[in-house]
Order: sequence, then C-alpha cells, then structure tokens
Amino acid sequence: MTRPLSIGVAGLGTVGAGVLKLLSDNAALIAARAGRPIIVTAVAARDRARDRGVPLEGLRWHTDAVMLAHDPDVDVVVELVGGSNGPAKALVEAALAAGKPVVTANKALMAVHGAVLAKQAEAAGVTLAFEAAVAGGIPAIKGLREGLAANRILRVVGILNGTCNYILTCMRDQGREFADVLAEAQALGYAEADPSFDIDGVDAAHKLAILAALAFGRPVDFDALYVEGIRNITALDIKLAEELGYRIKLLGIAAAVEGGISTRVHPCMVPVSHPIAVVDGVYNAVVAEGDFAGRVVLEGRGAGAGPTASAVVADLIDIARGRSTPVWGAGTADLARIPNVPMEQHRGAYYLRLMVLDRPGVLADVTGVLRDHAISLESMIQRGRAPGEAVPIVLTTHECQEAAMRAALTRIAALASVLEPPAMIRIETL
Amino acid sequence: MTRPLSIGVAGLGTVGAGVLKLLSDNAALIAARAGRPIIVTAVAARDRARDRGVPLEGLRWHTDAVMLAHDPDVDVVVELVGGSNGPAKALVEAALAAGKPVVTANKALMAVHGAVLAKQAEAAGVTLAFEAAVAGGIPAIKGLREGLAANRILRVVGILNGTCNYILTCMRDQGREFADVLAEAQALGYAEADPSFDIDGVDAAHKLAILAALAFGRPVDFDALYVEGIRNITALDIKLAEELGYRIKLLGIAAAVEGGISTRVHPCMVPVSHPIAVVDGVYNAVVAEGDFAGRVVLEGRGAGAGPTASAVVADLIDIARGRSTPVWGAGTADLARIPNVPMEQHRGAYYLRLMVLDRPGVLADVTGVLRDHAISLESMIQRGRAPGEAVPIVLTTHECQEAAMRAALTRIAALASVLEPPAMIRIETL
Repeated sequence: MTRPLSIGVAGLGTVGAGVLKLLSDNAALIAARAGRPIIVTAVAARDRARDRGVPLEGLRWHTDAVMLAHDPDVDVVVELVGGSNGPAKALVEAALAAGKPVVTANKALMAVHGAVLAKQAEAAGVTLAFEAAVAGGIPAIKGLREGLAANRILRVVGILNGTCNYILTCMRDQGREFADVLAEAQALGYAEADPSFDIDGVDAAHKLAILAALAFGRPVDFDALYVEGIRNITALDIKLAEELGYRIKLLGIAAAVEGGISTRVHPCMVPVSHPIAVVDGVYNAVVAEGDFAGRVVLEGRGAGAGPTASAVVADLIDIARGRSTPVWGAGTADLARIPNVPMEQHRGAYYLRLMVLDRPGVLADVTGVLRDHAISLESMIQRGRAPGEAVPIVLTTHECQEAAMRAALTRIAALASVLEPPAMIRIETL
Repeated sequence: MTRPLSIGVAGLGTVGAGVLKLLSDNAALIAARAGRPIIVTAVAARDRARDRGVPLEGLRWHTDAVMLAHDPDVDVVVELVGGSNGPAKALVEAALAAGKPVVTANKALMAVHGAVLAKQAEAAGVTLAFEAAVAGGIPAIKGLREGLAANRILRVVGILNGTCNYILTCMRDQGREFADVLAEAQALGYAEADPSFDIDGVDAAHKLAILAALAFGRPVDFDALYVEGIRNITALDIKLAEELGYRIKLLGIAAAVEGGISTRVHPCMVPVSHPIAVVDGVYNAVVAEGDFAGRVVLEGRGAGAGPTASAVVADLIDIARGRSTPVWGAGTADLARIPNVPMEQHRGAYYLRLMVLDRPGVLADVTGVLRDHAISLESMIQRGRAPGEAVPIVLTTHECQEAAMRAALTRIAALASVLEPPAMIRIETL
C-alpha cells in the first residue's frame, strides 16, 4: 500500500466534524477504495475548547486556516469554512498556489469565484474538487460532469434547497401558511435564525450557477441568474395548484433556449406526474437531460453532516486514486462563451391568482389587459360567489413572454376591483 | 491537445452504431471533456454489407473481433458483442493481455466472469470499464463505486429491467393480463421474440450481481442470487396491491442482513410512497443506502442505443483523461469474503392470494396452517360472497422466514378447498 494521503481540514463545524468521523468510522473501507489510508494530520478552527464529538488529539492545530496551505504535513486541503470571500477564499488560493489539491463544500465560493479559481487550479496543475457544494450526498457533480460527459445537456433542473422544500412540503401536507411553518422549522433547527439565504433562493442559486456551468461547459456566472424565493407562496396557491394537477416547488433551472442559456431560480408549478414533484421534505434532486442519455434523475439528502461528509470524502478518494477532472468539465480554454438570456425574454406558461371584488365587469377588465399584451388563457376558475365581497380568480395562460406578463400584471394590480397584489407562479411542464 | 485516443469497436448492432453516432455527433464536446479527440479507427462485425446508418468508410474492418486486441492502431477496445462466453470473453481477455483498456456493455460477462477478469485487468494494470452494463444511461456504476465510495452500503435496490417494468406498468394502467401485454410488447419491439432472459429475471440478475459486488466490495458471484421473474403476476394481484397501498415491481435487492449479504431478484410489493414505486415504463432506477449519505436514488433510461452509448463514451472519456477505478471498487486483494445468505433464510412480509371455494371452514384451515408455521397475519381481505363458488382471499403477513412460508404454502396448496396454486408476492417496505 502506498503512503497515506494526509489532509488538513479547515472549519470544524457540523460538516468538519462529520468528515473526521467518517474518515475514522470507515477508515478500512476508505483505505481499500482509495488504495491508501486517508488521514487527518492538521485542522484549523478558532475555538479550540469546544467539544465537537470527535477526538482531535495528535492533530496539528492552526488558528489561521491559511497556514494549512503551508503545513508540510498536509497533502490536501479541505475547506469547510464557508463564505464566498474572507478566509475560505484566501485558503483555497493559498493551497492552489502551493500546488496542493483542494476539496471544498463551499457553493458560494465556487459560484462567485469559480471561474478564476478554475484558472488558478489549472495553472497549478492541481485538483479543485467540490462535490459537496451541490446537493450534499447526491453525486450530482460527478454524475453530470463525468457520468453524462458524452452528452450535450439540454436542461438541468434541481430542487437544491432542503429548507425550502421542507417548508413547501409542510405547507402542502398541513395546509399551513409560510410564516407559521418557517417559525416552526426555525424552532426545530431546520431553518436558520436568519433564513433569508435559503428562503430567498440565494443558496439554490449558488448551486444552480455551478450546475449550469458544468452542464453547458461555460465559466460559472452567478450574476446572470434570475432569483426569486418562496416568501410569497400561500397555502391557497398550493391547494389550487393541486386542483390543477401541479405541485409547487422551488426549482433551479438552466436550459438551452433560443438565443443562449436561461438560468433561473423561482417557485414553479410542476405536473404531479413528474419525478421531481414527489421529491419531498429535505430531499434534493437534480434532473439532467442529455441528448443521448435522455432524462436522468438523481435524488437524495441535500444537506447535513453525513451526506456532506460523504461527498467530501468521495472527492478525497478520487484524489488518492489520482482521478482528476477539470473544474468546469473541460479546460478553461475549451469553455464556451454562450450568451445568457435575460428573464424578461423567458417564455412559459403562468398561473395567476387575483383577489377581486365580486362585481360585474371585473373579468372583462382583467382579460382585456391580458389580451392587450397578447397573453391567451388556458383555463380560468372562479370559485364561489359572494356579491360585493372578495373572491379568488385563478387563471392559467398559454406560453407567453415574461416581459408581457410583467407589464400586464402591473396594469391588473392597478385595477380598482383587484384587492391584493396578484400572485404569479410560473408553470413548468419540464 | 494530446494525440487522439483511438478506439476499436467490436459489435455493430444498435448500441455499436449508437456509439459511432455519438462519437461523431458530439465530437468537439467530447474532445473538450476528454482533453483529446476520441476517434474510431477499427471495427469488428460479421456482416459488412448491412447498412447501419453510420458512415464506416476509412475504418479498418475485422471479421474476427479478437483481432482488435492486436491491431496496433487501437488504443482501447470497446466490446459490444454480448454474451457471457464466446467471442466477447475471448476479446476482453485478449485486449487485457495485450495491455489495452477495455470498455464493455456486457452485463452477462461481468456478472459471470467479472471476478476473474478483474484479476486479469489488475495484473495487466489496465482499466476494465462497464458503466453501460447496468442501467444504461444512468451513471449507476460511477455513482455507487466513486460517488458513494466513502460509505458502507447497507442496501442497493434496483428496477433493472425495462421490459419487465414496461409490462408491469401497462398491466397496471390498462388492467390487462401478462400474456396479453407481453404479446403486444413483442409486436412493438419492446420485448424480444424469446423474452425469457428479461421476464424470468436473468437480465436483472446479471445487473444486480454487479451492483452487489460494488456495494459490498466482494467478488461478483452470480450463482449466489435467488431469481424469480414476472410470469405469474396477474392483473388481479396488481389491483389488490393498489388497494393495499402497494405497487408491484420486479426488484433486484442486495442487502446486508444478519449472517451476510442477501441477493435476490423477484416481484415485490413496494409502498406507493417510495420513490421507486413511481418509476414507470421503460425507466430504470437504482437506490443505494449509505451509512453517511443516506438514501440516494438514480433514475433514467436503462436501455436503448442513446443511453447505452452515453455510458460507453463516458467510460472512454475517463480513460482518455487517465481516470481509473479498480473493477470492484478496491483492489482484488482488498475485497471481502462476505457469506451469502440463502433465500430460505430470507425474512420479510408476504402477500398471499388464494382462490378458494366459498364454504364454511376454509379460513380456519388456511389460518391453521399459517399458525402451525408460526406465521402471523397482518391483514385479511375476503371480497364478496358467492356460496359454493370460487372467491379470492388476500392475506398479508408480519415478518416471517421464507422457509416457513414455503412449507406453509405447500400445505395450503394441497387443501381441497384451495382451487389454484396460491399467489405469493414479497412485501418490501424498503
């Protein structure tokens, strides 16, 4: 057996402790699959006193994470600090500059700085691996970048944030409102005290940016994404969606469309018959469509110490075996410059729900505005009658352009008989 | 760019033609991802005259496939001949002996001779890759062997035969009987003229043997499998399953159980809420449970020229990039000798359907036999009443041992009031 692969782990939070536990629990099995033992020789974290549930004796301790890059007893740096800037970025850059392979779980870093980091890794001739950055324990990066490498990818769709999927699933199953379920999820530790990163779609967007770059072989471009979270989803819309044969999911979608690539994260209505509609709770899923492979669905746990550690150590085993893949699937010189199609040019079907005053002429006003913007209706439901009071009207449209829909919604919202801002959810037939 | 990787393709059936088409259609993309062009320089097939829909000009043509192993212009041999013996085996052995990497789609070969071939590949220091042998376009081998490499795998479950899944789906959706749907599938080309290989579970068993070896890190052992096909599934059982909250699927299951590993292929009742229950038609799925990653589901097209070619070329890209993994995930010296637990020792719940004469005492006879074998009932449905005529009785049991169930069924079948051989389907809660 070859000499052990020595790793240095920066960041000893839940995931860092999980990596240490996994490397210890499954040491023999990992050594067999890696062709040599993988051992932790050094760690970096600020608080040395905290009990992390894993033994840390005999490990060299750095308080400055960047020192791991310069520690002669560290072959590979594992970055679990998090954040797109600051110490995480400094550590990854220092490790690459020192010619050391890096394994990171940092989606923000890869989404925001991945294009530059890929060039640095390539120049240094070392691996920069990030399986844990997307969809936790699901081998999504490997599946897409290696498993489907022979395919022109037509579309990648993902449920990429477990917190949002958990909240939407609870709202549906229990008929409860968003704020109520979010508060409970926070109490249970399933959502952060500051939940914005998850529920406003930013976390899913980081992951989608990475998947889009891999799928279409272009440099990662986080700023190109359209991002919308789930704060405005109501229990009523979820119920109406079910009646129409849809489920509401927060999806990340990267698709080849006329004029380039469309990348967007927003709530979607998906047909209940699609595999992604039944991915519930904290589960994540990635659906890729290849021109030869067809539709491939990968589903599993998208977060948590165990699944994330599984992905980190898979990357370490690849490195121990000498398996390496360019960051974005091809050398940076071979990446394509495919234009991004802005959200205003998106074409699709829409669900609209209006709360209107039940009086004559309201429907004529609303449908007149839609007609003015060349939007044609697919269905309309007016539920119940309550003359002079508020009633919901639900409309679904045929395919139209986002810009036209936004213009129409502005005018509809201004109608005197429309009592609330209209709810608009995009329908994805996938 | 490095010099091209030259490949020789043996077998120019649907899959062989698909590989040539894929390498041609996506040549630029494949070259970027592989780091060099992948070009076909030689082919081997018997009938030179047949039009295969792909250009074959300028390729060296061998009528004896083994000659590809000795062709100096062939770097990598792609074996698409099929069959566990004969020319396929001779070619793979010759190529490994000549020090050439091999890519094969041959599940029978890998299931039956994979243990020996792994040693040959290891001795020669070359890659033997077989992503296309299991679940077509789904990166199941890569997902399990590399993506989940850090995990102790607790169980692998798969829908591994598209023909069976298609037939069972049609039977359910249309309420038709097996023979009827099979005949139609044959007419449509979805089932072979001699369908035994598919419907008797042999094809699924080849794939499960491979998955079991990868999951548990032991030499492949096809003979250890218990195999039962779908010929005896009736429309009535499918309907009754739905009423009980189950779907009937032909599953391959490899699981760590008391005393070793259980490997079996047979029809199962699975809860409708499990992801595998909604994998319909020709789609395949592989579900792996890792001790750290948790449950991972991989789903996609399990057969056909496009998906299979996608898997073959993914292996070629790995080889072009210098990425290699031991055949069974670890070196042959590191594989474990885990005993196989025979089917008689299987423990699980069972569904039984009896056609009985509707007269007093029948139930007492049946339940008496079950009691004698220490089998306790979970539920019983007797549908309708027709004194003196045949009526179905449906029983589900709590967990019991297969040997006890078989002994009980022999006695039940011999009861005078039991009119047909009992239908028995295993319930898997997964």
